[in-house]
Amino acid sequence: PESKLPALGTTIFTQMSALAAQFNAINLSQGFPDFDGPQYLQDRLAYHVSQGANQYAPMIGVLPLREAIADKTAELYGHTPDVNNDITVTAGATEALYAAITALVRPGDEVICFDPSYDSYAPAVQLAGGVLKRIALQPPGFRVDWSEFRSLLSAKTRLVILNTPHNPSATVWRKSDYAELWQAIAEQEIYVLSDEVYEHICFDAEGHASVLAHAELRQRAIAVSSFGKTFHMTGWKVGYCVAPAAISAEIRKVHQYLTFSVNTPAQLAIADMLRQEPEHYRDLPAFYRARRDCLVDALSGSRFRVLPCEGTYFVLLDYSAISDLDDVSFCQWLTKEIGVAAIPLSVFCADPFPHKLIRLCFAKQPATLIAAAERLCQL
Amino acid sequence: PESKLPALGTTIFTQMSALAAQFNAINLSQGFPDFDGPQYLQDRLAYHVSQGANQYAPMIGVLPLREAIADKTAELYGHTPDVNNDITVTAGATEALYAAITALVRPGDEVICFDPSYDSYAPAVQLAGGVLKRIALQPPGFRVDWSEFRSLLSAKTRLVILNTPHNPSATVWRKSDYAELWQAIAEQEIYVLSDEVYEHICFDAEGHASVLAHAELRQRAIAVSSFGKTFHMTGWKVGYCVAPAAISAEIRKVHQYLTFSVNTPAQLAIADMLRQEPEHYRDLPAFYRARRDCLVDALSGSRFRVLPCEGTYFVLLDYSAISDLDDVSFCQWLTKEIGVAAIPLSVFCADPFPHKLIRLCFAKQPATLIAAAERLCQL
Ligand SMILES: CSCCC(=O)C(=O)O
Ligand SMILES: CSCCC(=O)C(=O)O
Repeated sequence: PESKLPALGTTIFTQMSALAAQFNAINLSQGFPDFDGPQYLQDRLAYHVSQGANQYAPMIGVLPLREAIADKTAELYGHTPDVNNDITVTAGATEALYAAITALVRPGDEVICFDPSYDSYAPAVQLAGGVLKRIALQPPGFRVDWSEFRSLLSAKTRLVILNTPHNPSATVWRKSDYAELWQAIAEQEIYVLSDEVYEHICFDAEGHASVLAHAELRQRAIAVSSFGKTFHMTGWKVGYCVAPAAISAEIRKVHQYLTFSVNTPAQLAIADMLRQEPEHYRDLPAFYRARRDCLVDALSGSRFRVLPCEGTYFVLLDYSAISDLDDVSFCQWLTKEIGVAAIPLSVFCADPFPHKLIRLCFAKQPATLIAAAERLCQL
Repeated sequence: PESKLPALGTTIFTQMSALAAQFNAINLSQGFPDFDGPQYLQDRLAYHVSQGANQYAPMIGVLPLREAIADKTAELYGHTPDVNNDITVTAGATEALYAAITALVRPGDEVICFDPSYDSYAPAVQLAGGVLKRIALQPPGFRVDWSEFRSLLSAKTRLVILNTPHNPSATVWRKSDYAELWQAIAEQEIYVLSDEVYEHICFDAEGHASVLAHAELRQRAIAVSSFGKTFHMTGWKVGYCVAPAAISAEIRKVHQYLTFSVNTPAQLAIADMLRQEPEHYRDLPAFYRARRDCLVDALSGSRFRVLPCEGTYFVLLDYSAISDLDDVSFCQWLTKEIGVAAIPLSVFCADPFPHKLIRLCFAKQPATLIAAAERLCQL
């Protein structure tokens, strides 16, 4: 059949993980831990399965999980979403992003996003018939130029997609960014899709700035999160979104025909985990800071320049002192010849990306990180 | 926000299950078992979780599951799908249906379906910008009138959606139906989406007729199935589709941005189950025939007329001897006053449905079925 997404191939994550496996390289490309999630979470999954919690969950998610999400949101961001109307559990954050974009973007609507941007936004906008306007952020700060942002707004602007802590740049939004965003869009019916899947992996002193903490913005916002990142279980595929009732109602219309509901025992296990071991997510910044510092320290003798990392489990390396190759070729070479798989930054950008940057995932055991760094230090 | 799906409310399944809970009625509405799946399957889930199989599965599904699906398909339908290119594991059959429709239907394309039809098809077609042409099938046989079908074909026809064994009518397609379908569409590039989620619950002497058994049609077909129905675990949300490589490639482009991948330990557990206990699905017709007959026998003294049931875990009852209410009102009354929740047939139809039919789910323990029948026999 003629393709509706002719420009698209397999995601870079699938490609690089396959290449890493083929060449037996240390895989710091696709973002997932090489260690396991909490024992308690695993035990609770087995428990709920054995108790017969194996039939359809409610379309919006099981009540204990929605309650735990509401309490966590209140504790962290000073906003208590309504348990019945504002929270929707989805098949990973990816489904939440797709459902929100599909529910809100009509053919011809304009959507603003910030490049480098996660690879699932653009295809979802395209399938909805929307037109993506991209703002190219520049390293090392990747800060938004708000006058540039305002110049992109039009009567057709419908949605702004942001991501903080930001994959792949590892930068975070400040409260002042939200203030600028609100000033720019307050007068128009523009929605904000805030991808906050790394909300619990933020090293900034001020902590994660959620869109939900902004009293005006959150009336127009969909905040998306992921338990896979928070609990080291990327394969369980449980995420959620929080949005005001009227927006959630539209997202649910899509969700109910897209997947209908999410794995029941996994939802119940995660609800137990949030209740019983909240220190897990509270301690996550320290947990990942140690891994980040382990990798960065081990690279200190290398010719890579390490960029600042404020959040996520990714860090950027500038390889301009090492090679003239473009970043895709460099990542392939690195995988095949040096035995370390990374992600090239240009794949997250529509415009040519004139920098020599690659992304490493440090959600790995220290031994893995040190072994990879040793190989990279040879260059 | 203005709704992109303004005519849609919450699914009838969510509505009726909520009403059943509110009035403490016996819930024979939404289709799910009130008994549990195999112990072995549960044990394998706990096993794979404990072994650390908790990170992203490959986007197309784990290899052992794709291999088991290929072998089962070969055994049952005489066609061996390619393990790498033809099989995609999805977040339930619902996601497979949504992804296939999204991948194939372009704005303005026409899609033919048969009413009564499962409620997720139409919203997916609508969101893709397609135009749905519905053929209204008539009880009790719900057979397709092939001259009517041919008269609906146009140069814009892109996709035909069929469902066998058919929810909600409990009828099945015959080989002759596929022959008629192929004759009608052979000359044009029209695709066939075959919803076969009840493939293992078929009481017909000839067994389930899969689109995959038709050598020509399967080159244009996407066959969708569900492990939730087969293994009594509707809450696990693992399904799949089988289609030729070129079609699968387009479906995967959507799937990878819709959910990316499916719960890893559940996939591995199901793969083990398919290998180790194939008698589970081989014995499923006998298992469900006993439950069907239990319900039908217990209703023999009632004033309902029971329609023939050739497959699925649903059976239709005609209540015209009992009430003049329309079917939605009758189902509400039945839930509130008689304590039995059922699904009205008209919700599966776009045209007015001039019959007095309700659907009961018999995926229940015999005691549940007998208790419900006792209440229904009072009418
Ligand atoms: C869905 S696979 C990609 C995982 C991820 O979020 C990343 O590596 O950026
Ligand atoms: C996804 S909830 C509906 C279950 C079902 O397939 C039905 O009851 O028809």
